[in-house]
Amino acid sequence: MNELILTPENEKILSNLRDSCREIRQMLTVEKNNILKNIAKQLLAAESEILVANSQDLSLLPSDATSAFRDRLTLNKKRIAGMAESLNQVSELPDPVGEIVDQRTLVNGLKTRRERAPIGLIFMIFESRPNVITEAFSLAFKSGNAILLRGGSESSHSAGVIYKIINDCLVGKFQKIPFFGVQNYDRKLVEIFLKQKKYIDVVVPRGGDRLIEFVQRTSLMPIIKNDRGLCHAYVAEDADLAMAINIVNNGKTQRPGVCNALETVLVHENIASKFIPELYRVTHSCGLRWHVDAASLEILNSKTLNLSIDDRSKIKLAEPQDWDTEYSDLILNCRIVNSLDGALSHIAQFGSKHSEAIITSSEEQAKRFQQEVDAAAVYWNASTRFTDGFELGLGGELGISTQKLHVRGPVGLRELTTPRWILEGNGQIRE
Amino acid sequence: MNELILTPENEKILSNLRDSCREIRQMLTVEKNNILKNIAKQLLAAESEILVANSQDLSLLPSDATSAFRDRLTLNKKRIAGMAESLNQVSELPDPVGEIVDQRTLVNGLKTRRERAPIGLIFMIFESRPNVITEAFSLAFKSGNAILLRGGSESSHSAGVIYKIINDCLVGKFQKIPFFGVQNYDRKLVEIFLKQKKYIDVVVPRGGDRLIEFVQRTSLMPIIKNDRGLCHAYVAEDADLAMAINIVNNGKTQRPGVCNALETVLVHENIASKFIPELYRVTHSCGLRWHVDAASLEILNSKTLNLSIDDRSKIKLAEPQDWDTEYSDLILNCRIVNSLDGALSHIAQFGSKHSEAIITSSEEQAKRFQQEVDAAAVYWNASTRFTDGFELGLGGELGISTQKLHVRGPVGLRELTTPRWILEGNGQIRE
Repeated sequence: MNELILTPENEKILSNLRDSCREIRQMLTVEKNNILKNIAKQLLAAESEILVANSQDLSLLPSDATSAFRDRLTLNKKRIAGMAESLNQVSELPDPVGEIVDQRTLVNGLKTRRERAPIGLIFMIFESRPNVITEAFSLAFKSGNAILLRGGSESSHSAGVIYKIINDCLVGKFQKIPFFGVQNYDRKLVEIFLKQKKYIDVVVPRGGDRLIEFVQRTSLMPIIKNDRGLCHAYVAEDADLAMAINIVNNGKTQRPGVCNALETVLVHENIASKFIPELYRVTHSCGLRWHVDAASLEILNSKTLNLSIDDRSKIKLAEPQDWDTEYSDLILNCRIVNSLDGALSHIAQFGSKHSEAIITSSEEQAKRFQQEVDAAAVYWNASTRFTDGFELGLGGELGISTQKLHVRGPVGLRELTTPRWILEGNGQIRE
Repeated sequence: MNELILTPENEKILSNLRDSCREIRQMLTVEKNNILKNIAKQLLAAESEILVANSQDLSLLPSDATSAFRDRLTLNKKRIAGMAESLNQVSELPDPVGEIVDQRTLVNGLKTRRERAPIGLIFMIFESRPNVITEAFSLAFKSGNAILLRGGSESSHSAGVIYKIINDCLVGKFQKIPFFGVQNYDRKLVEIFLKQKKYIDVVVPRGGDRLIEFVQRTSLMPIIKNDRGLCHAYVAEDADLAMAINIVNNGKTQRPGVCNALETVLVHENIASKFIPELYRVTHSCGLRWHVDAASLEILNSKTLNLSIDDRSKIKLAEPQDWDTEYSDLILNCRIVNSLDGALSHIAQFGSKHSEAIITSSEEQAKRFQQEVDAAAVYWNASTRFTDGFELGLGGELGISTQKLHVRGPVGLRELTTPRWILEGNGQIRE
C-alpha cells in the first residue's frame, strides 16, 4: 500500500491545479481566446522542434509496432498545422461559462437561475496520439477547467515539447497554472491520481478497452468514458436501395478505424437478395471482408455474384462473438432479420450505445427505431459517421461518451460545464 | 471471489429490469400518470396494513437506537398521506422524456436535435426511511426509468408492503416490470449488484458517509451521490443586520438535521461585534451551541452579553476539525474574517459544494461570491434551506447532488434523463 501514497511533490501539482480553478473561473473570455491563439502561433513557430522530438519518439518504437500505432504517434507539418487550426477554431467558439440554462422567480420572490459553470479539474489519460494534447487543453481551458494530462511513454518527447509550449503561454497569466502534463510514466502514478477525489473532479480516459476498464475499476471520481463504438445500420424492407448502399458503404469503408464506423448491417429479409449483392459489388474494390449469417451467405454464394475463390475467402460464417466485436477494420458483419423488432432486439443485445441508423421510407418505422434504440445518436437515412463534435457543430470534442450520465455523444465545450443554481433574494427564509 | 458471483435468479431480476427499459420508454405520459395515481390510491387503502408492518419494524429496533433513527423509520397516517400526495404531485408534472434541448440543421441538410431520454436502470440504495420508496419510484418511473431499490433491513416489513403495492399496480401493464424492491438483506448482494454494469446504468446511494464511500469504492457504474452538506453563510460588512440574523437563524435552527442547513457562519470583522451578540440573543432560546474562533469568543464573553455559567458552557473554542464537520445538530461554527477573500478561502477549503450564501448590500461583492464559490447553489441574501427539489419547483427530488457531473443540486425528473442526438437525413454521408 505504501507504493500508492501521493508524494508531497505530486500533491503540490494537484493542489496547484485545484487552486487554479478559482482563477480560471474569473478569467475573461477574450483573455482565454488570446492565450489559445498565442499557443497556436507558438506551436507553428516550434514546428521543427516538434518534428525532431517526434522523430525521436518514432525511432524508439519497437520494430513490431503496428503501422496504425506508428501512424497515430506521427506528427508532420500538416498535423501540426491542424493542431494550430483547431486551437484557433476553439478560440472563436462561444464561451459556455455563465450561459443561462433556465430561470424563474419563485412565489416568495426568490430569483433562481441555472448557469453553466466549469467542472473543475479534469484528469485525462490518453494513448499515443500527441495531437490530442492541444485539442484537450483548448476545450478544457476555454470552458474554464484546469486539466492534468497523462499520455503514453511512447510519445514522451513530442508531448514534452508541446507541454512546454502550452505552459510558457500560461506563465505570468496565472498565479497557479491550470495545466500540467505529466512526464513521469510510472504506471503506479496513474493509479495514485485516480484516488485523489479531493483534487480531481472528473477523469476522461481515452484509449482501448483495457485502459477504460482499469480506470473504471480504479477511479474514485466520476468518469466520462469514450469506449466502444459498435454501430449498426438497419436496412428496412422499404429502404431506398441506392441510399442504403451509399450510407452503409460510407459507414463501413470511409474510415473503418473510428468509433462511429459501422460494424454490422442488419437487412430486412424482403430486400436482402437485392441489397446484399449490390453492397458486395460496391465495396468489392476496397477489399472488404464479410462475417455473415447463414442466410446472407447463401445470397453471397448464389450464382448471380459468381465469386472467385479469392473472393469467397473474404466471406465467412459469423462466429457468435463476431456480433459483439468492434473490428475497427475493413470487416462487416451482415445479418438478415425478418422485422424491425428483430433489428431492435439485435441492437439492444449488441449495441454499444454509440450510434445507430435505420434506412427506411417509413416515418412510422423510423420514429419507432429512434424512440426505442438506446444510443447517444440515432440516425434516420444518414451515415453514423456524423457522430463527431466538429460535424455536429460543437467545434471539437474531448471524446465521444457512450455512458448515460452527463453527456451522450461528442463532448464539446458545453459538455465540459454543468449548470449550477444562482439565487438572489431579499431576505427569503424557509418557513 | 466465488461469493461475489451473480446468481441466475438475481441475473434474471436485472435482465428483466433492463428489458423493461424498452417498454417504459414507449409508454404514454397519461398511462404513467394513471399508474402513479393508482399507487397513491392503493397506498391510502392499505394504510392500516402499512402501519402494522411499520410497528413490527419499530418493535425490532435495538433499544439503543437513537430517537432520530427511530423517527426516520416511523410511518404514521400523516406520512402515508404525504407519500400519496407526492405520488399525485409527480403525476401532474410535465414528462421530461422527449423534451427537445436544442436543434439545428447542418449545411448538408441533416436535421439534428437533442431530446431528453431516460437514463435506463437506476439502482438506489437507501437507509431506514421507508417513505423514500414511493418518492424514488415515482420520479424514476415518470422519467421513463426502471428502478432497483435496496433499503436497510430495519425497514424490511414496511418496505415489503409498499413494494407489493407498487408491484401490484404495475402487473399487467408491462411484460417486464420496471421496478424491483430487494428483500434479501445480505450485504454481499449490494456489492455484487454494484459490479453489474451490463445491466445497471447509474447508482444512487442515499445515506451516511460510510455508505457513499463504500459505493464510490465499489461501483463500476456512474454514481449520483448525495453526501455532505457543509454549508456556509458569509455576513459581509455592509449586510442588512436584521436580514443577516434572520437568514443565519433560519439556516441553522429551522431544521438542523438536513443537508442544506448551515454549519458555519463567517462574519466580517467590522460587523462582528454587532452581529454575533444579536445572533446569540435570537438563537438562545433553542439552545444553540457555538464552536467559535478566538475573536468571536472574545465578543461572546464580553460584558454586553453577560452570560451565565450555563450559557458559557454552550460556547467553546473551535477545534480545527470543527470547520470540517457536518453536525446535523444545533451547533454552529462561527469565525471572523477580514474580507470577502477570507470568506472565499474558507469556503474553498471546507465547503462541500452544496449550498453557500452571502448576505451583503453590495452587488459587486455578491457577484464575485456567486462567480467564485464552487457549489451547487449559491445564494445572495436568502437562506440555503431552499436547495430542495420541491422548493425550487422541480416537484421533488431523488436526492441532492454534490458532484459536478450530470447534475448539481436537487435531482428531479429532468435530471433523471440525458439528452441524446436524434438525426434525420435524406441520404447524407460523410465526405
